[in-house]
Amino acid sequence: MAEKYAKRELLTLRSSMTQRLAVVAAQTPDLISLATGDPDFDTPRHIKEAAYGSMMAGYTHYQFSVTQELAEAIASYYGKYGVRVDPKSEVAVYAGSGMAIFSALSAILNPRDEVLIFDPTYPSYSAIASYLGAKIVHVPFLKERSLHDAFRPAIETLRRSITPNTKALVICNPDNPTGCLFSDTELSEIAELAKERDFLVISDEIYNEFIWGPGNFTTISKIPGMHDRTIIIMSFSKTFAMTGWRIGYAISSPALISLMRGIPTGAGPCDFMQKAAATALSGPFDEVYKMKSEYQKRIDYCIKRLKEIPGIFCSKPQGAFYLFPDISGLGKPSIDFCEVLAREGKVMLAPGIGFGPSGEGYVRIALVRPIPVLDQCMDAIEKVAKSLCVS
Amino acid sequence: MAEKYAKRELLTLRSSMTQRLAVVAAQTPDLISLATGDPDFDTPRHIKEAAYGSMMAGYTHYQFSVTQELAEAIASYYGKYGVRVDPKSEVAVYAGSGMAIFSALSAILNPRDEVLIFDPTYPSYSAIASYLGAKIVHVPFLKERSLHDAFRPAIETLRRSITPNTKALVICNPDNPTGCLFSDTELSEIAELAKERDFLVISDEIYNEFIWGPGNFTTISKIPGMHDRTIIIMSFSKTFAMTGWRIGYAISSPALISLMRGIPTGAGPCDFMQKAAATALSGPFDEVYKMKSEYQKRIDYCIKRLKEIPGIFCSKPQGAFYLFPDISGLGKPSIDFCEVLAREGKVMLAPGIGFGPSGEGYVRIALVRPIPVLDQCMDAIEKVAKSLCVS
Repeated sequence: MAEKYAKRELLTLRSSMTQRLAVVAAQTPDLISLATGDPDFDTPRHIKEAAYGSMMAGYTHYQFSVTQELAEAIASYYGKYGVRVDPKSEVAVYAGSGMAIFSALSAILNPRDEVLIFDPTYPSYSAIASYLGAKIVHVPFLKERSLHDAFRPAIETLRRSITPNTKALVICNPDNPTGCLFSDTELSEIAELAKERDFLVISDEIYNEFIWGPGNFTTISKIPGMHDRTIIIMSFSKTFAMTGWRIGYAISSPALISLMRGIPTGAGPCDFMQKAAATALSGPFDEVYKMKSEYQKRIDYCIKRLKEIPGIFCSKPQGAFYLFPDISGLGKPSIDFCEVLAREGKVMLAPGIGFGPSGEGYVRIALVRPIPVLDQCMDAIEKVAKSLCVS
Repeated sequence: MAEKYAKRELLTLRSSMTQRLAVVAAQTPDLISLATGDPDFDTPRHIKEAAYGSMMAGYTHYQFSVTQELAEAIASYYGKYGVRVDPKSEVAVYAGSGMAIFSALSAILNPRDEVLIFDPTYPSYSAIASYLGAKIVHVPFLKERSLHDAFRPAIETLRRSITPNTKALVICNPDNPTGCLFSDTELSEIAELAKERDFLVISDEIYNEFIWGPGNFTTISKIPGMHDRTIIIMSFSKTFAMTGWRIGYAISSPALISLMRGIPTGAGPCDFMQKAAATALSGPFDEVYKMKSEYQKRIDYCIKRLKEIPGIFCSKPQGAFYLFPDISGLGKPSIDFCEVLAREGKVMLAPGIGFGPSGEGYVRIALVRPIPVLDQCMDAIEKVAKSLCVS
């Protein structure tokens, strides 16, 4: 009966792919999952204590807006990146950055509007745009088999993909899964196109604290003329190991923030959640730096291991905490490789095809386990890769 | 610039009405708000401690589903109301019942589908349906100036409003703002229509613990043949004074729950939030009963006070914690009355028109302050009403 009642767009969204891997996961006890970007670190204790104190003080009521304390902490934080944010009118808080992205795209996309999305990238952008009936225009990353700069945004392809129906471009900077950190030049070129051809930029910057270089993180919003046509999407999940807390935010012009607030999804995170978030942003950042240093070690270690595996090539990410090795040398579609690895090696990775058509031939490894566990996972990957090379 | 970029549906959603009252609210210090259904009670301490304990134990990670513990607590809770719920496949958890309603309507409504909504009722149903491009068909409550049964669902009007495009009916049982508790007979008649004319019922039951009678709470889902065509919407907000926690849920057939899960709004409430919710449902309910008894006293007291005010008639609610007095005798539109009361009496109520066209001539009083404060509010209402009667 439900099929008949379904909203039409939903029927096209279902993915047999993830279902296939979900079945394997359910059938495989002791599976180690490196498939989800959920840090193994604990939320810093002072953040938890701030939430508890606020909760005990009775701050458990509806909150339909961002609290002044959190809005000011956000404005001050983005001030460090050169963005002038009016805490009163340019910030909206959401139950996670997923909801912020949903609200941003929902506020602007009409059916048949076109939205430019780099490929491969975080799949929720396409899922939401599809759900809204918009037309997704994939812009493949330029790919090279180099240790650095393996993935670059293809500015010329982007230019050629713009039409009068282009409403927005989504970028993830630094990018999940490719690790691409958009350079100042690339951001300037994108900004020029956005202004010239009049489209918005949704800039998902949730990995901005995890930068490995070369280069530093720059937000496109600080480029002259871009503040009012950029919606920055941010989260506390990755920076502070707060994935479950469901708190994220958006920064944009007062007009766009007001449109986003019009999406009827109910009240936002309450005062005690916002207190935790404000406490996180206000620092100290010691634990963030500890996590960063640990990610750096995991990257170095795993890259070294992957380098020794025949049929696999892995470049160094410039940001975020994923590796995105090229496994095309193993001659198997990414989903099949993941299935074999899960069944035989008891390690789950995310197949590259799940991040867009250009992700085929790759797998994403989330570095969310300690090195001894990652070591075991690398052993498993090596074993499966070798067996495939032989067969 | 933002107007140009807006999704079309959003532009029609903006309400100058609430903006007008928001301006008054901002200009009026010491305003007492009885405009929002946010209980003044504190979340019971054992629920907070459960959240804290879970948070400290590290349950702060992504959770994409309902936890087994919470699903079983929900199944057991609804078991008491005669609904057999499979915890594995028939429950979905959301960041508040607002998100559950959004997901339910988003999962089923295509543009131009028709959705039946009683009038007046909780305005989010219409806001979401409008946003989705569906056609809203208002079914006015039958209204009578009687102390009980002032608002009854108009089954004949409902029958005549059904067309081949009718996809769903939304009911709020007991209803916000009218206090109408749907009787077993009414629910059976609605169920017959739903089965005969093949539409779904979204049944928002978030006030189910606050029943004043006559009659008991029944869920339409337990009527034979209705489980698979009902989506129950529930919340922890009202029952346990957890409005800010943002946790609610839906119960329906596995197929409909699976469709709802397809709405791409990101991860759900994390384990420590779900732990709090499961703890709440598992009891003890002592504090819920205390709140209930206090609401009962507030209702009795305020009804008595309102009875003495010329130009106002207030019936007794059968459920929920609102009064919805008829103020048409005062000769002012509900929004104007609310504006005058806010400016002169420093009390904010919700204008009836905000709940639908048939709400005009009424105001909603949320009984979310202790009796001494409500007493002050009744004084203010009396004073403004008398001044209007004279003028």
